[in-house]
Amino acid sequence: MVKMQASRYAIIPVAEAQRIISLHTPSLGIEEISLYEAEGRTLAEDVVADIQMPPFATTTVDGYAIIAADGLMQRRVIGEVSAGHSGKSSLRNGEALRIMTGAPLPQNADAIAMVEHVVVNGDYIQTTESPSPGDGILPRGIDLQANQNVLAKHMLLGAAEIGLLATVGRSRVSVYRRPVVAVLSTGDELVEPHDPLGPGSIRDSNRYALLASVADAGGIPLSFGAVRDDELEQRRRIEEALEAADVLLTSGGVSVGSRDLIKPIFEQLGTVHFGRVSVRPGKPLTFATFDSGKLAFGLPGFPVSSLVTFEVFVRPTLLRMQGRLEPDRPWVRVKLKEELTPTLDRTDYQRAIVRWVEGELTAYSTGRQVSSRIMSMIGANALVRVPPGGEPMPAGSLADAMLTAPIQGNGSPST
Amino acid sequence: MVKMQASRYAIIPVAEAQRIISLHTPSLGIEEISLYEAEGRTLAEDVVADIQMPPFATTTVDGYAIIAADGLMQRRVIGEVSAGHSGKSSLRNGEALRIMTGAPLPQNADAIAMVEHVVVNGDYIQTTESPSPGDGILPRGIDLQANQNVLAKHMLLGAAEIGLLATVGRSRVSVYRRPVVAVLSTGDELVEPHDPLGPGSIRDSNRYALLASVADAGGIPLSFGAVRDDELEQRRRIEEALEAADVLLTSGGVSVGSRDLIKPIFEQLGTVHFGRVSVRPGKPLTFATFDSGKLAFGLPGFPVSSLVTFEVFVRPTLLRMQGRLEPDRPWVRVKLKEELTPTLDRTDYQRAIVRWVEGELTAYSTGRQVSSRIMSMIGANALVRVPPGGEPMPAGSLADAMLTAPIQGNGSPST
Repeated sequence: MVKMQASRYAIIPVAEAQRIISLHTPSLGIEEISLYEAEGRTLAEDVVADIQMPPFATTTVDGYAIIAADGLMQRRVIGEVSAGHSGKSSLRNGEALRIMTGAPLPQNADAIAMVEHVVVNGDYIQTTESPSPGDGILPRGIDLQANQNVLAKHMLLGAAEIGLLATVGRSRVSVYRRPVVAVLSTGDELVEPHDPLGPGSIRDSNRYALLASVADAGGIPLSFGAVRDDELEQRRRIEEALEAADVLLTSGGVSVGSRDLIKPIFEQLGTVHFGRVSVRPGKPLTFATFDSGKLAFGLPGFPVSSLVTFEVFVRPTLLRMQGRLEPDRPWVRVKLKEELTPTLDRTDYQRAIVRWVEGELTAYSTGRQVSSRIMSMIGANALVRVPPGGEPMPAGSLADAMLTAPIQGNGSPST
Repeated sequence: MVKMQASRYAIIPVAEAQRIISLHTPSLGIEEISLYEAEGRTLAEDVVADIQMPPFATTTVDGYAIIAADGLMQRRVIGEVSAGHSGKSSLRNGEALRIMTGAPLPQNADAIAMVEHVVVNGDYIQTTESPSPGDGILPRGIDLQANQNVLAKHMLLGAAEIGLLATVGRSRVSVYRRPVVAVLSTGDELVEPHDPLGPGSIRDSNRYALLASVADAGGIPLSFGAVRDDELEQRRRIEEALEAADVLLTSGGVSVGSRDLIKPIFEQLGTVHFGRVSVRPGKPLTFATFDSGKLAFGLPGFPVSSLVTFEVFVRPTLLRMQGRLEPDRPWVRVKLKEELTPTLDRTDYQRAIVRWVEGELTAYSTGRQVSSRIMSMIGANALVRVPPGGEPMPAGSLADAMLTAPIQGNGSPST
């Protein structure tokens, strides 16, 4: 029989664990991609405008280019200018040129009479409102100066940033590489969801959930299946995963039982920086690094424990590897709908639904907070942080919550 | 010369335009996918648990299965039970079985003595704390009942929901299909970002920005390039796009100029439901449907106009087509950092950065709010809705804001 003993790893505080991880988190390399693939990526270069915008004086309306000083007089329409055609047209007093939105302003024109403010008489127009110089005109360079810094390294690329890159002539862009993240489940009890359930079997749900979490955090998920509680087999699979991926996530096998092989294997292959954290759920969380510069997280096997420790410790790491400077989820202060009971000696992350209720952020518990009960995460959009302590936090008191999805309900009574 | 006249389309309010679109938005079909692809998809079936969880009484800790009534007495260790092995073990008074987290509880055992509360003497253990029945035990079925409804049609699938699907034996799941969305830019002035800029040319940025917006809204983006201002050519490309996609987005060509061909083409091919909306930016927004059941949005050509009208009108439509019941962005009430000037007769959506400042949501303007200036969207996480009117909204007053990205800053002073 294998000997069993209490863990030899010290229990460290959450913030200390986060600090240690962040100290060992490498920034991944840079790759050049097409603008078509840039959504959700993180910029790895500073971008400067190569041209001014608009590149020529233009119009913001459809109408007639005129000389404002001509006042309300009748003007002869001598032609048309439309976008994309630089006819190098020119006006004299008493003349007008039909002009379309985005077309270059003709020489000598200093105002646009909107089509809505013009009466057409054959080849002549009459403006119904007295024009002022500058009406309807977008001066050259007013929206963007050439050589202006427009985007900075580490920015997240969304639709507007991608539009701006196209505007300054970039159809390719440098971004940080996405981390490849291998996910490996451990345990003799695990079977695939579609396989028959024998006595003592449990379906492997953690791997599917963690692969989804990786994708949502911008990583490239790589399933390494489930491996039984055999040291040689686990070691082989872990070595393969560390070869293929930037980060390895295991689930299960980090407690103190005789079948908990992850910590010893990580010790053999690299350096275990911590093996227990003062967090609930998720105390046996383990973090290791290897000579290759790669990282491994030994996540606990209970479904809620693996997902909560992913949120608190792994997700910010994956975002940081992709060049994000602010990898944390937003935190808000919430009013508790129900009494919450702290854990005596660990920081507790309780699953909750945060809603706007009469202008206040209110947290509703998702029910029984045990680490085996994945139903406690369904529909949740927040982890309410309950500091260690002996006294319950009464309903109506305030707590900090990390938002994992948008706040529910309407924060704006008039919408 | 082509005649130019004021638009013959009535200007309708934002809410009316949204109502008309929603009336004509079809729900897309259903497809079955692997759990590996389910992240971010919308469930198209109600899911019921096929088993109870845990499927057998188990333990939440590593330790020794015992009979609590034996009290603090010394017990003989008769063997070991680990997860995945249903040895059908059984205990008699005075005996203990080593047991690992997740292992089935042996017959007659009614408590687990945690390894931390046990002193081992050869084949005997002594518990250091008096055990109570139920200690360390997770009763059968306590987390999930068989036949319990666990997930409902229309739910968004995130990591926890995917983990739960695996738990109830589902490795494939029915979800709503994602809409294929074709994006087509129009305008003689447009060139590709990497092509040389001739006089009068503008780089096509809208298409790249809109394709990114489509991807972010869960659609499948399909680039249809840029087409010049030629009616036959535009009509051909629009017909091709409506063949290939569920939804067509055009940008440009919806104003009242002689080159504004989109509305007439939509009229020829289908039904134009509206051609102007009381919104700024984006007044010429056009919405059409076709006998095929497909939709087209004629978005305005200015970069900010096309992105803001996408947010307000197109994004909720794409989410609704994918089965989402709450397709709207979250709204919050914000305090204005600067005075904002309304538009006399249109609802204005001004770009802003919403931050927590001393516990209050505060909106900072992104500067000059003209529809050509895409810089007004860079870094913005909100559209502040400014109702029509003549009076400026002073700094310090409250407004409604639609959040397009997480709130910045820290809403929880203690984190």
